Amino acid sequence: MKSSTVLGIDIGATKVRVAPVPPKGEPGKAATFAVPAGAGPGQLADIIAEHAASLGKKHQFDAAGAGVPGHIANDRRTLLYAPNLNWRDVPFAELLESKLSLPVVLENDVNAAALGEHRFGAGRGAGHLICIFVGTGIGGGIICAGELVRGATGNAAEIGHMLFRPGGRVCNCGRRGCAEAYAGGFHISARYGELAGREGLNPGQILELARGGDENASRVIEDACQALVTLAVNLQTAFDAQKIVLGGGVMDNAKELFEKVREGVSTWLTGNWKSQVQIVASELGPDAGVLGAAALARGIL
Amino acid sequence: MKSSTVLGIDIGATKVRVAPVPPKGEPGKAATFAVPAGAGPGQLADIIAEHAASLGKKHQFDAAGAGVPGHIANDRRTLLYAPNLNWRDVPFAELLESKLSLPVVLENDVNAAALGEHRFGAGRGAGHLICIFVGTGIGGGIICAGELVRGATGNAAEIGHMLFRPGGRVCNCGRRGCAEAYAGGFHISARYGELAGREGLNPGQILELARGGDENASRVIEDACQALVTLAVNLQTAFDAQKIVLGGGVMDNAKELFEKVREGVSTWLTGNWKSQVQIVASELGPDAGVLGAAALARGIL
Repeated sequence: MKSSTVLGIDIGATKVRVAPVPPKGEPGKAATFAVPAGAGPGQLADIIAEHAASLGKKHQFDAAGAGVPGHIANDRRTLLYAPNLNWRDVPFAELLESKLSLPVVLENDVNAAALGEHRFGAGRGAGHLICIFVGTGIGGGIICAGELVRGATGNAAEIGHMLFRPGGRVCNCGRRGCAEAYAGGFHISARYGELAGREGLNPGQILELARGGDENASRVIEDACQALVTLAVNLQTAFDAQKIVLGGGVMDNAKELFEKVREGVSTWLTGNWKSQVQIVASELGPDAGVLGAAALARGIL
Repeated sequence: MKSSTVLGIDIGATKVRVAPVPPKGEPGKAATFAVPAGAGPGQLADIIAEHAASLGKKHQFDAAGAGVPGHIANDRRTLLYAPNLNWRDVPFAELLESKLSLPVVLENDVNAAALGEHRFGAGRGAGHLICIFVGTGIGGGIICAGELVRGATGNAAEIGHMLFRPGGRVCNCGRRGCAEAYAGGFHISARYGELAGREGLNPGQILELARGGDENASRVIEDACQALVTLAVNLQTAFDAQKIVLGGGVMDNAKELFEKVREGVSTWLTGNWKSQVQIVASELGPDAGVLGAAALARGIL
């Protein structure tokens, strides 16, 4: 690993963030832009290369890492499926390499964000780390003995689809009862809509209603908390981490939810369990993915 | 690692198994003996050494590994707590070393059994492996990228205490709703006793009653299956293994339960999930722990 500046790329379903990242991890000024509707891999790679070139005037890059919202093969070069981009079986590392003239490594976007928090954020110093990101859906990333847990097919840590109430609410994955179907932002809003007949409120607004005594809102928020507490307890019971990082848009914008989940997990994990795990808020926000992708890029130098 | 014969020791709550294990893993004739009631660490180490000496007449041992039913520190030399033996903070590797005159490594007994299945049994060839053992309680062991997952404090894979119905039945750990409180052998029997007023039946007998139409038995068995299916699905969602090994006394002696769980897991993991994981029965039975402990012993040579 050389002490050079690499390019971190974080591709989301709707926007892309590209930033130069020096060895110590403080990212330079990032370029953020929208994913054009229906963009194919070639088109997006072209736009990324244009932005990289504009950033590159001041920097010399030696490699690039890209977080992609989908299932990355264990070669870390092939995107198998990205549902929100509607891409399948794309040799995306090769494509980016041809446009950027740099070696490229791919990772699932949430795994990359977890690695970012591990190396540079709230998870620093924790060789065993669980990251739970609550946004529209629920994603996760696990670090075990310093290494990202990818699993046999690169599909590990899809924690939003761990079962909370088997047979319960239908999740976007088609199964019934996943944690995400109770605690993902989309489902918090949808469920309140179903119970109260009032659509379109976001989780923060529903939390506010719960605080004001709205019974439907309280029920939705209590179930979301229970789903997240159960998820965190189960992951800790399986992995025995030093820290659990809670982040993502819903969690970052509802500190009360964070506190409720932290309190719930602490209650469950004390007593006979006596776990010393720390539950902390993510620190890097939108930079987590870029920084994790950059850490991976440094790994292939 | 030398290609020598090592000593595998599997200490349970009630009995101990000691066997010579050559490099290829087929154990020699084992000595099995009961743990004397209230035995302390020194007394048990003495008895183990006597048996090892009798086995050793034909063998030269270079190291020993011991599976112990408790929480082993990450130095793999200190037993922190073994509830069923009522031992706490015992430098048990040092104690065994002084009696056996061999280097000794410790591991949790269930982790050792999982490692045995990984190296020599049903989990051979699976670098990513989940083992679920259903006996009186439920224990587990996870292999991730070829390595045993021990966690930050050696307490990983305590999977019987992953939550199935938070707030539900009281588990032996003191929490409510653990998987073990529905699917461990002790709790299957206890719950049937509570519902039917008929104590002392074992899980196999309760399965037989369920088959004959007994409603209480059916309810207990269905819930046990659902708990095990949920547990396996959640572990697979977190770890993305190639194989899930189901074993332990209850599972080994109730093939119908194994088939029900296998079918349930396959149903959940197909569809959008499309996992290629294989669900297989453990192969090594009572030799799993001895073989895994021996594999660890070979690792310290």
